[in-house]
Amino acid sequence: MPHLRLLVSCADRPGIVAGISGFLAGRGANITQSAQHTSDPEGGRFFMRIEFDVADADDLEEAFGVVAEEFSLHWRIWDAARPKRIAILLSREEHCLLELLWRRRRGELDAEIVQIASNHDLARRDADAFGVPFEHVPVDPEDKLASEARLLELLAGRCDLVVLARYMQILSGGFLDGVGVPIINIHHSFLPAFAGAGPYTRAKERGVKLIGATGHYVTEELDAGPIIEQDVIRVTHRDDVEALTRLGAEVERTVLARAVQWHCEDRVIVHENTTVVF
Amino acid sequence: MPHLRLLVSCADRPGIVAGISGFLAGRGANITQSAQHTSDPEGGRFFMRIEFDVADADDLEEAFGVVAEEFSLHWRIWDAARPKRIAILLSREEHCLLELLWRRRRGELDAEIVQIASNHDLARRDADAFGVPFEHVPVDPEDKLASEARLLELLAGRCDLVVLARYMQILSGGFLDGVGVPIINIHHSFLPAFAGAGPYTRAKERGVKLIGATGHYVTEELDAGPIIEQDVIRVTHRDDVEALTRLGAEVERTVLARAVQWHCEDRVIVHENTTVVF
Amino acid sequence: MPHLRLLVSCADRPGIVAGISGFLAGRGANITQSAQHTSDPEGGRFFMRIEFDVADADDLEEAFGVVAEEFSLHWRIWDAARPKRIAILLSREEHCLLELLWRRRRGELDAEIVQIASNHDLARRDADAFGVPFEHVPVDPEDKLASEARLLELLAGRCDLVVLARYMQILSGGFLDGVGVPIINIHHSFLPAFAGAGPYTRAKERGVKLIGATGHYVTEELDAGPIIEQDVIRVTHRDDVEALTRLGAEVERTVLARAVQWHCEDRVIVHENTTVVF
Amino acid sequence: MPHLRLLVSCADRPGIVAGISGFLAGRGANITQSAQHTSDPEGGRFFMRIEFDVADADDLEEAFGVVAEEFSLHWRIWDAARPKRIAILLSREEHCLLELLWRRRRGELDAEIVQIASNHDLARRDADAFGVPFEHVPVDPEDKLASEARLLELLAGRCDLVVLARYMQILSGGFLDGVGVPIINIHHSFLPAFAGAGPYTRAKERGVKLIGATGHYVTEELDAGPIIEQDVIRVTHRDDVEALTRLGAEVERTVLARAVQWHCEDRVIVHENTTVVF
Repeated sequence: MPHLRLLVSCADRPGIVAGISGFLAGRGANITQSAQHTSDPEGGRFFMRIEFDVADADDLEEAFGVVAEEFSLHWRIWDAARPKRIAILLSREEHCLLELLWRRRRGELDAEIVQIASNHDLARRDADAFGVPFEHVPVDPEDKLASEARLLELLAGRCDLVVLARYMQILSGGFLDGVGVPIINIHHSFLPAFAGAGPYTRAKERGVKLIGATGHYVTEELDAGPIIEQDVIRVTHRDDVEALTRLGAEVERTVLARAVQWHCEDRVIVHENTTVVF
Repeated sequence: MPHLRLLVSCADRPGIVAGISGFLAGRGANITQSAQHTSDPEGGRFFMRIEFDVADADDLEEAFGVVAEEFSLHWRIWDAARPKRIAILLSREEHCLLELLWRRRRGELDAEIVQIASNHDLARRDADAFGVPFEHVPVDPEDKLASEARLLELLAGRCDLVVLARYMQILSGGFLDGVGVPIINIHHSFLPAFAGAGPYTRAKERGVKLIGATGHYVTEELDAGPIIEQDVIRVTHRDDVEALTRLGAEVERTVLARAVQWHCEDRVIVHENTTVVF
Repeated sequence: MPHLRLLVSCADRPGIVAGISGFLAGRGANITQSAQHTSDPEGGRFFMRIEFDVADADDLEEAFGVVAEEFSLHWRIWDAARPKRIAILLSREEHCLLELLWRRRRGELDAEIVQIASNHDLARRDADAFGVPFEHVPVDPEDKLASEARLLELLAGRCDLVVLARYMQILSGGFLDGVGVPIINIHHSFLPAFAGAGPYTRAKERGVKLIGATGHYVTEELDAGPIIEQDVIRVTHRDDVEALTRLGAEVERTVLARAVQWHCEDRVIVHENTTVVF
Repeated sequence: MPHLRLLVSCADRPGIVAGISGFLAGRGANITQSAQHTSDPEGGRFFMRIEFDVADADDLEEAFGVVAEEFSLHWRIWDAARPKRIAILLSREEHCLLELLWRRRRGELDAEIVQIASNHDLARRDADAFGVPFEHVPVDPEDKLASEARLLELLAGRCDLVVLARYMQILSGGFLDGVGVPIINIHHSFLPAFAGAGPYTRAKERGVKLIGATGHYVTEELDAGPIIEQDVIRVTHRDDVEALTRLGAEVERTVLARAVQWHCEDRVIVHENTTVVF
């Protein structure tokens, strides 16, 4: 029996839950998980995620459109049987890539990794070992748009999500528009601290006692997009920049894997510059 | 406008959410928070918590009884404006008591502390300072039932929750029945490790690298009731039993405060020997 | 038998540990704890903390001066039997003050709280209950130096440490010089994120998934002094600014208490703008 | 210049630090890190770890023997340039093996992985990919000693450490004696909770809110050896046994990697049934 996920957001008003769950009950659906959030009881925004089984999903989206219109819903329905297609970009560091590949192989990541691309020709052997196509797309500092154009050829229309797994190039607004799917980045600090380059060096200089990582959707403004997940690890005066980098790598791969997994399970809704994670 | 909380559990089947939310919509209620859980999509148990505003709450419980019968619901509705009445029992250690009193004073604990009782006459001054009645109920090892009888006189029918804030006496099944309200205990270990007496001493002997605390509902079997919340703190070989006790006290009061707060906000449903915490 | 703590820092070179421990052995001292750190094996800085028992401490400092000179040591010796005298400043929020008072009462804080002062007249009753002198030192926005002058009268020469337990006034460089003892502040964010005013509001806007607190030494530059301790707590989209403030208060008081305790146990050495915490 | 690590334990008495550091100074050694612990100031046990550079390490061990005898030291010296040789045993689950292999490849694990063996023939391809010899050593339930004998042939004298990376067979006392090097195991619970088989299933039944993992030295008593490292991860009622297993795997591999790394850096000393981790 098809297992579907419905994500909804709209201006809050009475009757939404009843309207939606009444529709689903009318279709014989069985709700197996649901969660709801209202940003503010007075004039706030309403968010909902429902997982349900339904015998006949054929014209469900069309029929749901009527309910959606009544409540002016933003919504999407995703068939749980259809894994998201992921493309991964990286530069030199491969630990985040490997974490995703391993989780995929162990059946822990509900997604298909369809393409890996890098501005360095280092991860080809790993990509081959996991049977994923790899493309070396060098970046010419004088002509960055050329490499973005090549990436767009490679990715646009062929994936549902782009993951920047320590990809150290800044992507233009044109690329974001062109690729047309969400992009998740891992930043190696607990944003908004240490946005930009060299976070571990700056963390050492500032003498912080925790270092962290942040998984977030990419927007045009660098390191400023909606945060999906963050975590930290304790460090001490004994840890030099190299040790911070090594400890941080543990957090980076965990945080990125969670952010990607939650996105692939349709648990994340963007609200202004923040996220609701159900 | 009255703000109510509805907690529901029942055998899972299609249509429950629609039935309940349809009823609420029909009463003009506005759902401000809801969460749902199904223990198993096949033949599992269904749990739901809904917070809602409704203009007319007068015969709401009666009317809801019809829906409840249709789905064979276990349920309760609680008016958010009515704080739970809490009685606190303790022995010598006062840190958990003080944590609850301070949170109450700061307006962080959605409850009224109506009585403090102890088998030691040590906390009277603190109780006075916060304006809460204190009763010294000594325990005669030869006649424990006498002290339980005195506690029952003091508490039965006068509170909605009993909190054991480091109360080191074992309560009989008769007491549990007699008091007729839930009892939350804080145990000074991450159960099921180190159940029973002297957990910090045993933790030191075992050489664990984390110590913890567990907030749980009390059942007749010692330290075996449904767990509401647990947390841990890192320790090292440098920490002797005294240091473990001091560090553990931090975790104990945080964990107990969370467990009590979640109970008071009607976020906890017991399921077999576990809890669903919404 | 006197129990002393020796803190040392100097340019690293061979023989320091042997020189110091040889001196102590020559005096019949028994080292009960020691720790050492070198910031960089090549041309770095050396840090050491030693706790030791010694029968005759009479001219120990004088005699140690010879060793100190040989190695160009920065050093201090503190008698563990002499608790540090602490003065606490606060504004409206009292949770950090109370945490320190309670820990002191429970014998968990190795210090004497000699004075509380505030620009609001709110904490007097709490101060009285713990038997600590309280002084209301209002701040006239037109003449901040007057209140600083009053604070200096109250504190200079009378305490070994000043703790800013949510004191929301910025202290001038003149005050820092005049008071002549270290000042520890608790900032309600994981610095360097959200330095300055309103960190919880800004945390909510940025949509972070962790909020934190930072205990640091005060320098002339706001929220930029050497960090002693930091910690964080997980939050979600459900937590509004009020909830962040409440959850954050838990972290603030824990972090501040740890930072103060470590300072009082002579565990902290400042190195450039960071700390070594033994 | 040789970089050495000295680990020492003995009955505590005055003069040990001076004796050892005096010896090292006499040899022209430069101490780059040191830490010390005394289990009890009165009649306790003394532990010390020193890292030092020394130009001439030729007869250093022999010369140190004189100091060692004077203080009745247990001690060992390890040349940091000589990586420990590790053998890894596993059964079906490969995540812990892969974590160690990847860390090794990234240069994060200060060790050489010389052999992988398993009672299942599943990890051969991964072993090949990392260039490590793999041996399938099936276990005949009727004749477990035969497989242990084969493992002893494979490992005895050829490694400095055996790591049980989710090896689900119980090893006999004879094996422990025969292999003659420390064995580190990862247990998939926060011991002493859920020792033995099926910890995640039992964790789900008990309704714990944290699950954990424990890295410990193996002794004849199952899951009862000295603990090196533990960590936990938060879980909720939504997580079924499969989810606990998946989340737990994250903690297992981190905890095992840390325990192995600390052992390889000579940071761990066993004391009775506990560890000192410097």
